[in-house]
Amino acid sequence: MAFSRMLEVLRRKFESYGFVPMDTPAVERVETLLAKGNDHEIYGLYRLADGVAKRDLGLRFDLTVPLARYVASHFGQLVFPYKRYHIAPVWRGERPQQGRYRQFYQCDVDVIGDGALSIAHDAEILLLVAEVLRSLKVPAFCTHINNRKILSGFLKTLIDDEQLTEAVRLMDKMDKISSDEFDNSLLRLGVSSENIGKIREFLESDDGRSNPEILEWLKTLDFNDEFREGVAELEEVFGILEEFGEAAESMRISLKLARGLTYYTGNVFETVLDDFREIGSVAGGGRYNDLVGTLSDKKLPGVGATIGVSRLTPKLLESGLLRADELSTARILVTIQRRDRIGDYVKIARDLRQMGIETETYLQEKNLGAQLNYAAKKKIKFALIANLEELQESRAIVRNLETGEQRRICTSPMDDEIQKIVGRGDEKT
Amino acid sequence: MAFSRMLEVLRRKFESYGFVPMDTPAVERVETLLAKGNDHEIYGLYRLADGVAKRDLGLRFDLTVPLARYVASHFGQLVFPYKRYHIAPVWRGERPQQGRYRQFYQCDVDVIGDGALSIAHDAEILLLVAEVLRSLKVPAFCTHINNRKILSGFLKTLIDDEQLTEAVRLMDKMDKISSDEFDNSLLRLGVSSENIGKIREFLESDDGRSNPEILEWLKTLDFNDEFREGVAELEEVFGILEEFGEAAESMRISLKLARGLTYYTGNVFETVLDDFREIGSVAGGGRYNDLVGTLSDKKLPGVGATIGVSRLTPKLLESGLLRADELSTARILVTIQRRDRIGDYVKIARDLRQMGIETETYLQEKNLGAQLNYAAKKKIKFALIANLEELQESRAIVRNLETGEQRRICTSPMDDEIQKIVGRGDEKT
Repeated sequence: MAFSRMLEVLRRKFESYGFVPMDTPAVERVETLLAKGNDHEIYGLYRLADGVAKRDLGLRFDLTVPLARYVASHFGQLVFPYKRYHIAPVWRGERPQQGRYRQFYQCDVDVIGDGALSIAHDAEILLLVAEVLRSLKVPAFCTHINNRKILSGFLKTLIDDEQLTEAVRLMDKMDKISSDEFDNSLLRLGVSSENIGKIREFLESDDGRSNPEILEWLKTLDFNDEFREGVAELEEVFGILEEFGEAAESMRISLKLARGLTYYTGNVFETVLDDFREIGSVAGGGRYNDLVGTLSDKKLPGVGATIGVSRLTPKLLESGLLRADELSTARILVTIQRRDRIGDYVKIARDLRQMGIETETYLQEKNLGAQLNYAAKKKIKFALIANLEELQESRAIVRNLETGEQRRICTSPMDDEIQKIVGRGDEKT
Repeated sequence: MAFSRMLEVLRRKFESYGFVPMDTPAVERVETLLAKGNDHEIYGLYRLADGVAKRDLGLRFDLTVPLARYVASHFGQLVFPYKRYHIAPVWRGERPQQGRYRQFYQCDVDVIGDGALSIAHDAEILLLVAEVLRSLKVPAFCTHINNRKILSGFLKTLIDDEQLTEAVRLMDKMDKISSDEFDNSLLRLGVSSENIGKIREFLESDDGRSNPEILEWLKTLDFNDEFREGVAELEEVFGILEEFGEAAESMRISLKLARGLTYYTGNVFETVLDDFREIGSVAGGGRYNDLVGTLSDKKLPGVGATIGVSRLTPKLLESGLLRADELSTARILVTIQRRDRIGDYVKIARDLRQMGIETETYLQEKNLGAQLNYAAKKKIKFALIANLEELQESRAIVRNLETGEQRRICTSPMDDEIQKIVGRGDEKT
């Protein structure tokens, strides 16, 4: 499967759920971008001829800003819940380095409600992400789920409100920093050693317990309204996932999970590959109370996910599931031995295409050996070969260039057998 | 058909001919861009935080520069003839106005040879463009064909070499400017009135003649080597097109045709819609001697075409062949009457998707009327309705929301009939 084919798999999957494609221009107003981004990551634009007169246009750095801007400005035309996906490049003004590119693809899928949005949509997004990853044939993965209200409801029993954001950020980094660093950072925030112990104990109490056990235990804690609400939302989403028939074993409650972005307000999740945890999450997302923020006075809650296509790519390449470069999209090369009968060969190619078989015709004036060599170099697996006599009798030979195996076929009408010989399109990817 | 679907039709068509997709980053070095563009149309980039320290990066303004840069820098890895297509946005630093956008899509398809490239590829590109347009169901069109060597070979018999570029540019504009303006511009170039008459006579002598008649007449002229070569190339491409079975009636020799870009060197063509000439050409292209120019010392001749997707879009919208906005990609909405049996409904939706039917599940807590209203507003044509009794008996009703017609189906195993009821995916577009 080539990268372009991978994007098509994603598109088809999203559309099978009724999500519509979004395609906004790459250029947004700087003002809109700065409402969510910082100027270190944003590229501004200027006309070369003018120099920089104005700072009014820039390149998007994510797909959430365009979504918020689009929903705010098209509110009247949209039908809610609004369901869209967006697969497109974004640009970050960072120095390109290993694993960090100036331009990379993002793939977002979101459901936006007008006023209210059922928790069932959280479950649907989780289900969809799992289905997408399976359809990309990524290796074994696990989705960690938590609820921001559980985290902050609990933390509020021990620390002040103004320390909360920083503390949540620390939880999220817990697996990446040393245990000393974690403790010291909390101490610097003014959290007592005793409370640090309690935080640690709470965050690690999901260890070795099943999801139902964790939920039961959470229900006994009953810290405050926020906490209770978070537990109820988490329980609801698990209940629906079970109804959805989504294997519980690939979903795990993870009390540490916060997701860096502050705009998440409810259920959050992150998917990691079991055998490649070091690349970080390959998908993630969650529930937010308010998509559009300052862009509109509407309250538009949503739930969404990002599939990390750029992060997945190297792993899929390594495992051979993705090909770096496609040398040809054709499954068969129609070779030409008689230039004066080029029309016959072209007709054969056309018939093959009409059967859904991607077919290249070799049009340079070269001998058969050079033509077969071309096919081999472009990794086109089959060649169709016909000399004058065969053309006259509507016959041809199909040669498998990998095994050398040859089959005779009839070309008029085109032998249905050919589809079996060259394989179906799906198998090719 | 939505815009995203239209791009998919294009991709599939190109790939059926063995062309591979190209996807280069939007950002190129300014130096590379300026080799072909002018600084009025190029957007430069700067990091907002830095201001404009460097003028080294900019956005591509066409897809030819990225192709040339790519081929020059990957020469060793490519297999020639190299066949690629590229559908992607480009950016122009012009003031956005009616019909001119800051960002628009281009769609290019090219074959690049190493050293030599058979004229048969010119015919293949023409054939492919015609097939693409037909698969987009665009209204009746005509492709005008000429050869740059005919035009310049002829002009050289009457005017000096240094006037040639300007004269060719004038030919190309001939249909857009008044006859006086045409004559006066040539006079200003220093062409005598007598020669202007000869030019006029030559350029208009294709009028009312068939392609074979024009070719026969051109062969009698025999001005110089360049002219003869041009006539031979044009004749060859028509010969092959005929062999290809491409209807000659949609192709016309047009002696005025030059194509603005100076880099074309052989056969050139432009496709216009018979009933919408005012929008200009919807496809165009031709043969060039040297793609990479200063980027490499290799000689890489090519032939290619641009499909004007942005120009086609308004016409296709008008004729109803393209939809501006898709409100849902789903063909059927599974409504939910019993929240406690949500799993049953989700299973039905999953079974429908597995049959290739795009299916949305209504997950908000609303009554049936509101759910059907949602489907109608999103133009989802069918709704699946099942109450508790029906769920228990694995039955459901499929309602056509446009006609009100209802059909009973069995849901376990899912009735194959459903595919006929909701129609096939292809029909939906």
